[in-house]
Amino acid sequence: MRKIINDPVHGFVTIEDDLIFQIISHPYYQRLRRIKQMALAYLVYPGAVHTRLHHSLGAYHLMHNAIAELKQKGIEIDATEEQAAKIAILLHDVGHGPFSHALEHTLVDVTHEQLSLLIMQKLNKELNGQLDKAISIFTNQYPKHFLHQLVSSQLDVDRLDYLARDSFFTGVSEGVIGYDRIIKMLTVVNDELVVEEKGLHSIEKFLIARRLMYWQVYLHKTVLSSELMLVMILKRAKELVSSGVELFSTPAFQFFLSHSLRYEDFLNDDNCLSQFLLLDDNDVITSIKVWSTNPDPILSDLCKRLSERKLFKVVFYKEEERSEINQLKIDFQAKFQFEPNSQNYYWIEDETSNRAYNSGDEKIKIYFKDGKVKEISQVENTLISAGLLLPVKKHYICYLRQ
Amino acid sequence: MRKIINDPVHGFVTIEDDLIFQIISHPYYQRLRRIKQMALAYLVYPGAVHTRLHHSLGAYHLMHNAIAELKQKGIEIDATEEQAAKIAILLHDVGHGPFSHALEHTLVDVTHEQLSLLIMQKLNKELNGQLDKAISIFTNQYPKHFLHQLVSSQLDVDRLDYLARDSFFTGVSEGVIGYDRIIKMLTVVNDELVVEEKGLHSIEKFLIARRLMYWQVYLHKTVLSSELMLVMILKRAKELVSSGVELFSTPAFQFFLSHSLRYEDFLNDDNCLSQFLLLDDNDVITSIKVWSTNPDPILSDLCKRLSERKLFKVVFYKEEERSEINQLKIDFQAKFQFEPNSQNYYWIEDETSNRAYNSGDEKIKIYFKDGKVKEISQVENTLISAGLLLPVKKHYICYLRQ
Amino acid sequence: MRKIINDPVHGFVTIEDDLIFQIISHPYYQRLRRIKQMALAYLVYPGAVHTRLHHSLGAYHLMHNAIAELKQKGIEIDATEEQAAKIAILLHDVGHGPFSHALEHTLVDVTHEQLSLLIMQKLNKELNGQLDKAISIFTNQYPKHFLHQLVSSQLDVDRLDYLARDSFFTGVSEGVIGYDRIIKMLTVVNDELVVEEKGLHSIEKFLIARRLMYWQVYLHKTVLSSELMLVMILKRAKELVSSGVELFSTPAFQFFLSHSLRYEDFLNDDNCLSQFLLLDDNDVITSIKVWSTNPDPILSDLCKRLSERKLFKVVFYKEEERSEINQLKIDFQAKFQFEPNSQNYYWIEDETSNRAYNSGDEKIKIYFKDGKVKEISQVENTLISAGLLLPVKKHYICYLRQ
Amino acid sequence: MRKIINDPVHGFVTIEDDLIFQIISHPYYQRLRRIKQMALAYLVYPGAVHTRLHHSLGAYHLMHNAIAELKQKGIEIDATEEQAAKIAILLHDVGHGPFSHALEHTLVDVTHEQLSLLIMQKLNKELNGQLDKAISIFTNQYPKHFLHQLVSSQLDVDRLDYLARDSFFTGVSEGVIGYDRIIKMLTVVNDELVVEEKGLHSIEKFLIARRLMYWQVYLHKTVLSSELMLVMILKRAKELVSSGVELFSTPAFQFFLSHSLRYEDFLNDDNCLSQFLLLDDNDVITSIKVWSTNPDPILSDLCKRLSERKLFKVVFYKEEERSEINQLKIDFQAKFQFEPNSQNYYWIEDETSNRAYNSGDEKIKIYFKDGKVKEISQVENTLISAGLLLPVKKHYICYLRQ
Repeated sequence: MRKIINDPVHGFVTIEDDLIFQIISHPYYQRLRRIKQMALAYLVYPGAVHTRLHHSLGAYHLMHNAIAELKQKGIEIDATEEQAAKIAILLHDVGHGPFSHALEHTLVDVTHEQLSLLIMQKLNKELNGQLDKAISIFTNQYPKHFLHQLVSSQLDVDRLDYLARDSFFTGVSEGVIGYDRIIKMLTVVNDELVVEEKGLHSIEKFLIARRLMYWQVYLHKTVLSSELMLVMILKRAKELVSSGVELFSTPAFQFFLSHSLRYEDFLNDDNCLSQFLLLDDNDVITSIKVWSTNPDPILSDLCKRLSERKLFKVVFYKEEERSEINQLKIDFQAKFQFEPNSQNYYWIEDETSNRAYNSGDEKIKIYFKDGKVKEISQVENTLISAGLLLPVKKHYICYLRQ
Repeated sequence: MRKIINDPVHGFVTIEDDLIFQIISHPYYQRLRRIKQMALAYLVYPGAVHTRLHHSLGAYHLMHNAIAELKQKGIEIDATEEQAAKIAILLHDVGHGPFSHALEHTLVDVTHEQLSLLIMQKLNKELNGQLDKAISIFTNQYPKHFLHQLVSSQLDVDRLDYLARDSFFTGVSEGVIGYDRIIKMLTVVNDELVVEEKGLHSIEKFLIARRLMYWQVYLHKTVLSSELMLVMILKRAKELVSSGVELFSTPAFQFFLSHSLRYEDFLNDDNCLSQFLLLDDNDVITSIKVWSTNPDPILSDLCKRLSERKLFKVVFYKEEERSEINQLKIDFQAKFQFEPNSQNYYWIEDETSNRAYNSGDEKIKIYFKDGKVKEISQVENTLISAGLLLPVKKHYICYLRQ
Repeated sequence: MRKIINDPVHGFVTIEDDLIFQIISHPYYQRLRRIKQMALAYLVYPGAVHTRLHHSLGAYHLMHNAIAELKQKGIEIDATEEQAAKIAILLHDVGHGPFSHALEHTLVDVTHEQLSLLIMQKLNKELNGQLDKAISIFTNQYPKHFLHQLVSSQLDVDRLDYLARDSFFTGVSEGVIGYDRIIKMLTVVNDELVVEEKGLHSIEKFLIARRLMYWQVYLHKTVLSSELMLVMILKRAKELVSSGVELFSTPAFQFFLSHSLRYEDFLNDDNCLSQFLLLDDNDVITSIKVWSTNPDPILSDLCKRLSERKLFKVVFYKEEERSEINQLKIDFQAKFQFEPNSQNYYWIEDETSNRAYNSGDEKIKIYFKDGKVKEISQVENTLISAGLLLPVKKHYICYLRQ
Repeated sequence: MRKIINDPVHGFVTIEDDLIFQIISHPYYQRLRRIKQMALAYLVYPGAVHTRLHHSLGAYHLMHNAIAELKQKGIEIDATEEQAAKIAILLHDVGHGPFSHALEHTLVDVTHEQLSLLIMQKLNKELNGQLDKAISIFTNQYPKHFLHQLVSSQLDVDRLDYLARDSFFTGVSEGVIGYDRIIKMLTVVNDELVVEEKGLHSIEKFLIARRLMYWQVYLHKTVLSSELMLVMILKRAKELVSSGVELFSTPAFQFFLSHSLRYEDFLNDDNCLSQFLLLDDNDVITSIKVWSTNPDPILSDLCKRLSERKLFKVVFYKEEERSEINQLKIDFQAKFQFEPNSQNYYWIEDETSNRAYNSGDEKIKIYFKDGKVKEISQVENTLISAGLLLPVKKHYICYLRQ
């Protein structure tokens, strides 16, 4: 068995393992074809319509390369470990629902990591325990810690792939990273994934690119606005449903509109996960289109706006500009055209914060020729020590410009 | 007003005209965000999820470049003509419905070109005749014939963009064409769009790339299979609806499931076009997912297979292999597990044919330094004269491997 | 030992073998840094200044990939064979002198293949026979014939690299080939290198790209003209030297200006090869610059023209235009300003011919799923059978426009 | 007149102006074909063999784009100014000699900027003053200051091109910058070139890329070592010539080996510039090859090492490691094999320093939506304010490892 898949980012992705092929062919995995990696970012970057399936295949490919590299450097990784690490990365995002960063706490109150694990466990049963080792790596129980770091750390193949891929599909060339060079520079010291000294500049570039993508793409005002509007739509729809209104939707989406589920619910009732596995972007987008003509004026208004890309305005402001924002709010309220108690759907205040490098956990470590290992923020003359450790926090409002 | 849109294929697309911006912002155009350019090809090429909106923006960009080139060569094109040609290309595909090549005669019995024109006319009314000239170019009524050729001919900016774009997103590098070089080589002689002599090899390459993309991508067995399955699903759904069964679907999709519409219907009843403008890929994909559990065994079976990518097998065969195919059919029938009269959903016979270059209409013409213009198939030593004029015809069957 | 070399074409080239590293570090190989792959083509394509060293490193990289691919398909290739095949491709062009296609019969009357072999043998002595197997593969004596085919056949890694590389550096995107896809499709049947059926379109594209590069780049009129002028300069310089005139030049170049060497001379006198190994583009270009002020009017005129890119005109013509060419020659002669018997330096007549695919030897073979192997020109519906077998012959004159 | 030149970096460069075409065809400009943009960096990055001619054509292309952009934003630039700015950028590097950063004070004690101006003036005479305006822009005498800034400032098209080009040809993808986006963001406020607010992240990326290229490429140890060895070779050669030894060289190179020229000499004696215009990389490389067998043991040893890429070792060290360096020097001296007073050719101590952004002159200014203009180091939350203003200084030794 040998499958070659064209990937415009990495060239070719090769699958040569029956179990992995079986996983890729499974409906749980195929569902990721219908979930966009970048949610609504395509409203700004029309090319950003790539899927979570595509990303996880790409991350799998980079895992393959990273492991080949480490093995060539004499790091011991046996065939079962290699297979398990590849499965872990293939499935690391399998728990994503539609628009999951935006909807993580609106649709269900469970993180996508928790859901990924639940789905892996469900699949593991079906496959008679063949995913045991993959799950152990995913949950960081496996003795060879560095395998987990390849799956999930500040320098995992997940990030290497999504930065490269998101840059590629958005056309934001500034996000391009030297992922193949970074992989060539990886090694393992004392069971820790480290980067060889001469990869230092590539790491800097990677961190800068991440920061740039964050502000220029992931948190682009239009993206932010559309995702907040999506949250408002969901909130309104759930409210209507809970008050007994019947809304068009697929059965699976209906299930989540009429239940507010938490992690425990998924543990107690198998049906929760089964319903979740039927859900994807199409259910949400289709419903929003249909709701555009719903009798509820708030729901239909919000849905029509989002479908037609007539979005709320976003303003970032500084603490000291607070009074101007207050004035803006007064003006907003004066002109507000819907029922007053629905203002919260049209005026949202929040803040966002980003740290290009978090020295907390799973740090990036540099391996020097003299044998020393230093965490990157401790290395002299890097940008990280200078400025990237500080989080950048931004306040914003998102509202209907009347 | 000035908008810059990131396009990974062309770099940046710039919009600097209010009317054009208004058209792009219009819901009719925004709908194209929800229609994939390559329909189900993403089942083979996971990157091929780009949209018709993205393609038409790209074609608009190439129109801009082509016109700039021609103007620099002294061809007269005034500002209104330039705007009109750009609008014509922007809207040339606005009549595409979901999966339209596959469903062109199943969903509605109207071509997408007819629908594009109807939508342009509807929009023209809304915009008080501002699209008159664009429509005249689109329908080839405008005196400057070459403007129509830029929109629609064997070397129009539509093809230049979609070949480049489809190559880019599928990752099939062999489809890459030198579109910028071709544009640099365009000129106009006697109101005909022609290619300067030194662009000859680029044109050859373009025709070869088209042929290659045709067989390797657009008619890839898996793509063909999935699109035929989609047709079968629609046929079954319409049959069920017409026999009184209620099927889940959005109101707009319901409208087309329960009516068999022809061109006349669109002319007579405005609601046809209005419903059509509400339809996109999501309606179809969502319904298919829901139908996977429909009580009708045929419909649910077909839908489940397509959603989970368990596709029919495709076999291309030659005339002389006809008897082996007949034997295969006998075996198929012997094992067939559903009601016998539903065999047509599971065994499809057809043929397809492709001609890389059609010397029929809107031919490609080469302009030689000595002033002569020759149709490309008349030029010596080209591949076109030798082999590309012949159509390649392939018979195939597409069936459920039991 | 592990070296990673950045290659803009392939990403990274990795060297992990001490012997190979030793060869790359050897002055014989390092000399290739000073010989441009595309000779004077940079006069048209300013980017085409890449070197033979760079090309042979790239071909080595593709050999690595091709062998990895074949091994994964179960073809037996042991470590010594792999090393030998890599060395053979690394050194396949080591016998190129400066501007060697142009000067092959003017500077020395020995082919570059003969010289490559002589240099490999010389190096083999120095390395105590470690190149025995590489030489045996290079000369097609080694039992596993397919290894030789990887080094030298109509689908060898040499061609795959130079087409990709020459496209890249010239910026002629139409020459881009899907070399990685072709490599993925290679396999071995009955000791013959073959291409799997689904690689058929990629092979067609490769042959088309070769033909296109031939006419658009390698035989571009300006390139042809500059290389013919170079030949004329060498001829004149040798003539002057043989008549006792002293010309500026490096000692090594002097050696070749004052001797007309044939293969036998290289076999009989070791110094011939030693001198050859000191020669590169710089000797020639520097001398031409200095000769621009030489008292000989012909030599200085030709040199000044080439250095300043004031090139002869090239006209391709057909048999039936012969009389016009004759008239042109009469006009040329009437106006000729130098001593009449030097006309041959300023008026050159010749012809060139190219065949995209030569069905003679080391043919390209396609391996079908049913187990059959067919030579590509025998496969139905390919362009090769239709048109590419025919050689395209062009007559030309190259002369000083007075 | 219309010339299209293939550029793998920018696609196509178009020349449509007779005067500009005349300048490009002039021997002074054509000389740049024989001077590599990155000097000896090809010893590490084999692709880095692109020329100064190629770079200046690329910068000309970006100037064309930048001016088109500014004109579209309503900035007044008339046709003569546009032509002049393009000429200024085309010729900005025409004063570069071979390996000029390395040899700037060894070959002649004149900067390349001074030489560029002298050559422009010489050419201006020949062209009857047609370069007056270009020279006035180049020397910052022209009233519209921003035109000079496009030619020479911290964000000029020179840097935009060379970073993009050097990244491209080295294959160091981390150096890739979004030059087209930066150009789209340029505008002019109060006669100053400024960057619109939303280009801020692109500017950060540009500065980071520059810093990265500096340390990873331009100051790569191997590049540094080879350039220092080149300086040592020139020093030795000049010493030998001044002591009466005859060395092989071209007449032009001989001129510079036997004279130590300063700016005044170029002003007083026209022959200095004429000789300089005959010089390029080939003269130097050819001589070094010939000198490899020179009787002087120092000269031949250094030349042989450089030709065969047997380079000195470079060690960067910190102030506190000074004593270890001293010990290293003692060891070096103990083992030194040549005449003791030649140690300076084999042991070089120096330091280098780099500042990614220099807030001194021709600063980068950001133009905010509210109309304010701020120098980039004054903008909040940028990396520049945090870390990039500080120069990074490195001490190093470069010596023969015996």
